[in-house]
Amino acid sequence: MKREGMLVIISGPSGSGKGTVVKELVKQDCFALSVSATTRAPRPGEVEGIHYYFYDKQTFENMKQQNELLEWAEFCGNYYGTPKKYVLKQMAEQKNVILEIEVQGALQIKKIYPDCILIFMIPPNAKELQKRLTERGTEDKQTIDRRMNRAIEEMEFIPQYDYIVINDTVEKAAKAIDSIVKAESMKSSRNLEIKQQFKGEILC
Amino acid sequence: MKREGMLVIISGPSGSGKGTVVKELVKQDCFALSVSATTRAPRPGEVEGIHYYFYDKQTFENMKQQNELLEWAEFCGNYYGTPKKYVLKQMAEQKNVILEIEVQGALQIKKIYPDCILIFMIPPNAKELQKRLTERGTEDKQTIDRRMNRAIEEMEFIPQYDYIVINDTVEKAAKAIDSIVKAESMKSSRNLEIKQQFKGEILC
Repeated sequence: MKREGMLVIISGPSGSGKGTVVKELVKQDCFALSVSATTRAPRPGEVEGIHYYFYDKQTFENMKQQNELLEWAEFCGNYYGTPKKYVLKQMAEQKNVILEIEVQGALQIKKIYPDCILIFMIPPNAKELQKRLTERGTEDKQTIDRRMNRAIEEMEFIPQYDYIVINDTVEKAAKAIDSIVKAESMKSSRNLEIKQQFKGEILC
Repeated sequence: MKREGMLVIISGPSGSGKGTVVKELVKQDCFALSVSATTRAPRPGEVEGIHYYFYDKQTFENMKQQNELLEWAEFCGNYYGTPKKYVLKQMAEQKNVILEIEVQGALQIKKIYPDCILIFMIPPNAKELQKRLTERGTEDKQTIDRRMNRAIEEMEFIPQYDYIVINDTVEKAAKAIDSIVKAESMKSSRNLEIKQQFKGEILC
């Protein structure tokens, strides 16, 4: 079954470890990671085209107007978004494109591209989430509490996601997403041409 | 995520090899094979409770009336059906129960039990199907042609199935079904209690 790749969107609370799992997944040739665009200034070490595409505000505005973004949002005065071109090119080359984005962006994309696969990643339990956030050592108790509450808020959107992946270990979570992508590629709704092919072969 | 097992229904044309794939799957502990009930007489070698449950017509009629069958049909004057009790018991014990049944029965079950997973299995192409039917050596050309046409008729129901599995090799097809079952167990619609659990843990 040769066909275009699928769009796999991964969201989940800060501390769910989705970034690490995505890094594990894209080691496989069949996956490509989408790179977001932003108008914020690059931080030290951030590389154009790897961490982000860095655009000025005018360029980003033009992309918005010309419908060149799959989704976009504004945070703290900066734009963030997903350029359509790269995603569609990779999918045409039969790569499954992974997007790691927050809930609002994910739901924006599902509206215009209902074939995309929405995965919500969570740590095995609340205690583990708190532990992971604490072990980062970069945030104070108040910030951690805020993130825990934010996690609960985000989880309200789970019913709008297709799958929940529990990130117990990176390997298990990556394998779980692998199974999801394999299963999705066998969905009958994605393979309706098979019936016609088969019929054609018999009549030949 | 401990919960009851899922009901996995596999259909497909005669010659699709679904029986062999099912045998491979049930080698795994997490799967149980449902055994059908019939009113036809046992053939030589057929064992009660393994190949079929053999019932007399009155017993079968009673089961129908008391809603003890997931689905049933009549062929050539005999009843065939799926006893509910065994299936539900296995699912309660967290086994995924596999049912190998034809299209009409599968769709009957989907109506009353929408959570079941419908898989349609096909050989890689029409030529291969013809080859498999011919190699059996038990049927004449006319019967083979009739089965090929029946395959096309059955394939009209593919859009009502959840997945299509191409049976290229037994191992690959069994792995494909494994991926489907794993993915389905992560469907958010099957895991909505997770959000509440998580919330409860934070509030404790």
